[in-house]
Amino acid sequence: MGNEFLNIMNPEDVKKIISTLPFNKKVEKLAIENAYQRVLSENIYATINLPPFKRAAMDGYAVKAKDTFRASEDKPTSLKLLEVTMAGEVSQNKVEEGTCIEVSTGAPIPEGADAVIMIEFAEKKDEDILILDSVTLGANIAGEGSDVKKGELLLSEGEFITPDKIGVLSAIGLSKIPVYVKPQVAVISTGNEIIKLDEKMEYGKIYDINSYTLYNAVKSCGCQPIHSEIVKDDFESLKNKIIEFKDADIIITSGGTSAGAGDVLRMVLDEIGEVLVHGIAVKPGKPTIVGLIKDENEGQIIFGLPGYPVSALMIFHVFIAPFLRKISSLNGVDEENNTIKLKLSRRFRPARGRKQYVLVKIQENQAHPILKDSGAITALSEADGYFEVPKNVEILEEGSNVTVMPLYFK
Amino acid sequence: MGNEFLNIMNPEDVKKIISTLPFNKKVEKLAIENAYQRVLSENIYATINLPPFKRAAMDGYAVKAKDTFRASEDKPTSLKLLEVTMAGEVSQNKVEEGTCIEVSTGAPIPEGADAVIMIEFAEKKDEDILILDSVTLGANIAGEGSDVKKGELLLSEGEFITPDKIGVLSAIGLSKIPVYVKPQVAVISTGNEIIKLDEKMEYGKIYDINSYTLYNAVKSCGCQPIHSEIVKDDFESLKNKIIEFKDADIIITSGGTSAGAGDVLRMVLDEIGEVLVHGIAVKPGKPTIVGLIKDENEGQIIFGLPGYPVSALMIFHVFIAPFLRKISSLNGVDEENNTIKLKLSRRFRPARGRKQYVLVKIQENQAHPILKDSGAITALSEADGYFEVPKNVEILEEGSNVTVMPLYFK
Repeated sequence: MGNEFLNIMNPEDVKKIISTLPFNKKVEKLAIENAYQRVLSENIYATINLPPFKRAAMDGYAVKAKDTFRASEDKPTSLKLLEVTMAGEVSQNKVEEGTCIEVSTGAPIPEGADAVIMIEFAEKKDEDILILDSVTLGANIAGEGSDVKKGELLLSEGEFITPDKIGVLSAIGLSKIPVYVKPQVAVISTGNEIIKLDEKMEYGKIYDINSYTLYNAVKSCGCQPIHSEIVKDDFESLKNKIIEFKDADIIITSGGTSAGAGDVLRMVLDEIGEVLVHGIAVKPGKPTIVGLIKDENEGQIIFGLPGYPVSALMIFHVFIAPFLRKISSLNGVDEENNTIKLKLSRRFRPARGRKQYVLVKIQENQAHPILKDSGAITALSEADGYFEVPKNVEILEEGSNVTVMPLYFK
Repeated sequence: MGNEFLNIMNPEDVKKIISTLPFNKKVEKLAIENAYQRVLSENIYATINLPPFKRAAMDGYAVKAKDTFRASEDKPTSLKLLEVTMAGEVSQNKVEEGTCIEVSTGAPIPEGADAVIMIEFAEKKDEDILILDSVTLGANIAGEGSDVKKGELLLSEGEFITPDKIGVLSAIGLSKIPVYVKPQVAVISTGNEIIKLDEKMEYGKIYDINSYTLYNAVKSCGCQPIHSEIVKDDFESLKNKIIEFKDADIIITSGGTSAGAGDVLRMVLDEIGEVLVHGIAVKPGKPTIVGLIKDENEGQIIFGLPGYPVSALMIFHVFIAPFLRKISSLNGVDEENNTIKLKLSRRFRPARGRKQYVLVKIQENQAHPILKDSGAITALSEADGYFEVPKNVEILEEGSNVTVMPLYFK
C-alpha cells in the first residue's frame, strides 16, 4: 500500500482529456408524443405551406372589399348571404358583387372573396347581411404560406424540443421526429461493504447509494442510465460486469479506485483497456479514473469514481456531466452560468496541494461552507452550490469573496 | 350567431376561480430509480444512524491516539500490525497499546482504537508499522450517527426529488419512495377541419397541432397527459369523448369554444356539467371555457381552449399551467420569476378592451413584438417570452419599458 496513483493530473488537463474522448452520436425516429425534451438530429424543412390554404382569421363574412367601402353603421350596405362555411368545409358558391358567405375562423376563403368582415361589424336581416363598416382588401385573411412557405427551414439540427416546437412539427403533419439517441450509461456500484436497499443492515455494511444517485444524475444529463447489481471489489467480478455491459456507450463505476482500497478498476483496465487518467489533484475525488476499454467493448468509455457518495457526485458534476451533456446534445440547453458572488461566512482552510470544491449553503446572502466529510451524504442535500479554491490558497478569511456555482443535479 | 359569450370575465377573476378548483392529491410508492423529478408525499425520517457504525474516514491505521503522541518523522513510533480490515469486513482483533490494525476508508473502527492515522504518515517495516506523526483522539473517524441520527427528519413532504436527495433516501435503504401521483390530464383536439398527422392533406384541412403541443405542455407541468383521437365538432361526439375520459382528473379540449364556431363544449357542459367561465377579457384566447363535469365524471375539471395553437398555448401558460403545477406539487420548483425589463423596439398598438399578451423576440437587449396573428404557429417557436398590456392602454411608444416574462413550456 501507499500512494500508488501513477500520475496525479491537474483538473484542467483532465477536463481536456475528457472533452476529446471519441463518441459517435446515433439517431432515431420517435413518435411526436415522445419527442419532448429530446434534441433534433436534422434540419426540418416545411413540406407544405402554413397555413396550407387561404383562410379566415376571424369569424365573419367573406366579401368583396369594395362592396364595403361605403358601409357605415348609419348607412349599412346589404349583401346577399349565399351560404355558411365552417372550418373544415369548402364553400359551394363564389362570392360575386353584392353577395357574401359566412365563414368561421379557419374556414377556406371562398372564391371571389378578398376580405373578411368581422361578425361584430355585421348584422343579419332576413336573408341578407347588413355590413356596418368598411374593410380593406385582404382584411382578416391569412394567406396560403403567410406563416411559412413550403421548403423553408422550420427547425434546425440540435434544437431542444419544447411544446412550441412540437407545434411547428405537427403543423406540417410530421408524426415521427428524428432525434439523437440518448447515450446509454451503465452505472455500477462496487464494494464489499455495499448492500442492496431493503436488505437487512449488518454491522460494517452500508446501503448502496451511488448507483441510485448516479443513475438519476445520468438522467439529468439527457442520457439513458442502465442500473447494475452491486459488484464485489474483486478483479474477476468487476471485469465480468464490465464485459457484460459491452453494449452500453459508457460505464460509470464508483468505489474501488482508491490506491488503498485495492484499486480493482485500475487492474481491470490494465488488462482489457487503457487508463487515461488515474488521480486528479482535487478534493474531494482524487482517486478518479478515466479509461477506455480496448478488448471486448472496443472504444467504450469508462469513468471510475470514488466510493464516497459526495465525492462521486462532485466529480460527476465537475468532470462527467459536461461530457454527457455534450454527447446527448444538451450542451447549450440551460447552461446559463448562474453563478452568484457571495461573502464567505467564516474563515476556511482549504486542503493543501489540491484544488478544492467546497459545498456551501446560502443564507442571509452569505456562503456558509458545509464542514462535513465526504462520507456525509447530507452534505449534498443541504448544499445550495459550491465554490472552487485554487490549489495554492492557504486560507480564506471570513468575508472573502467566493463565486458560488449551482449543481446541475439539484 | 353573434357575440354569445355570457359573461366575459377579467383575467384576475378567472385566475382566482381556477386557483380554488377542488383537487384531491393521490399518493403512490415508486421504485427509487423512477423517483427522479417527482415530489415526496410524506416526511422521511432516518430509520438508521448515518453512518450506521463508527468507520474509518481515510485509508490508514487504527490506533490508540496516545500511542502516537510522541511520534515524528525523525523519531517514529513502532506499532505491531495485527491485521488488515477492508471496507465491509470486521476486525478479528482488538487494538491494544502498542498495536494497530490497517483499515481502508469505510471499514469499521476496530475495538480499542480511538483514532486513524492516514497512510501517508506511516511506513511499513517488516511486521510493524512506523508511525511518523501524532494524531488526535477521534482523528479520521466518522462516528456512528455523526451525519444523521436515527429518527431525525431527513426530507420533508413536498420536496422535489433530485439525485442528491435520492442519495439520502438510499442511504437509509429505502427502495420504494412515497410520492404524489401525477394528475392525469386528457388532451382532446376538436374540429371538423383537423386531420391526423401523416394523413394526406386535403384542401381546407389542417393537421392536428394542439393535442401534441398541449400533451407536451401538460408533461412540462408534472402531469401525465393522455392523448385522444381528434373529435368532430358536434355535440354527441364531444360529449361521448368526455364521458370516455371519466377516469382522467382533468380534460383539456381545444377548438369548439368560440361563439361563432358553434360552441359545442358550452352545450355539452350545459347538459352534463357546469360552466364556471366562458370568455376571458384577454387577447389572444378570449373564447376560453372553464367548467366542471357533474354527471358521469363527478367533479372532473374541464378546460376548453381556443382552436388556434398560439392562443391555446398562451391560455394554457397563463391560466392552466400554474394550476397544474400546483396539483402536481411542482409549484415552488423552478418558479423564480425570471422576468427581464427591456425597451420595446417599436411602437405597438394593443387590442382594445382586453388585456393583451404580446409575444416578443429578444434581440440586442430590446423586446421585438412578434406581429403574427394567432394562427401563425411559428410565432411561438420564435418567441423568447411575452409581456402583458393592461386593457386600457391605447398605445405603447417605441422605447417603452416592458417586463418580459418567460414561457414555462420553452
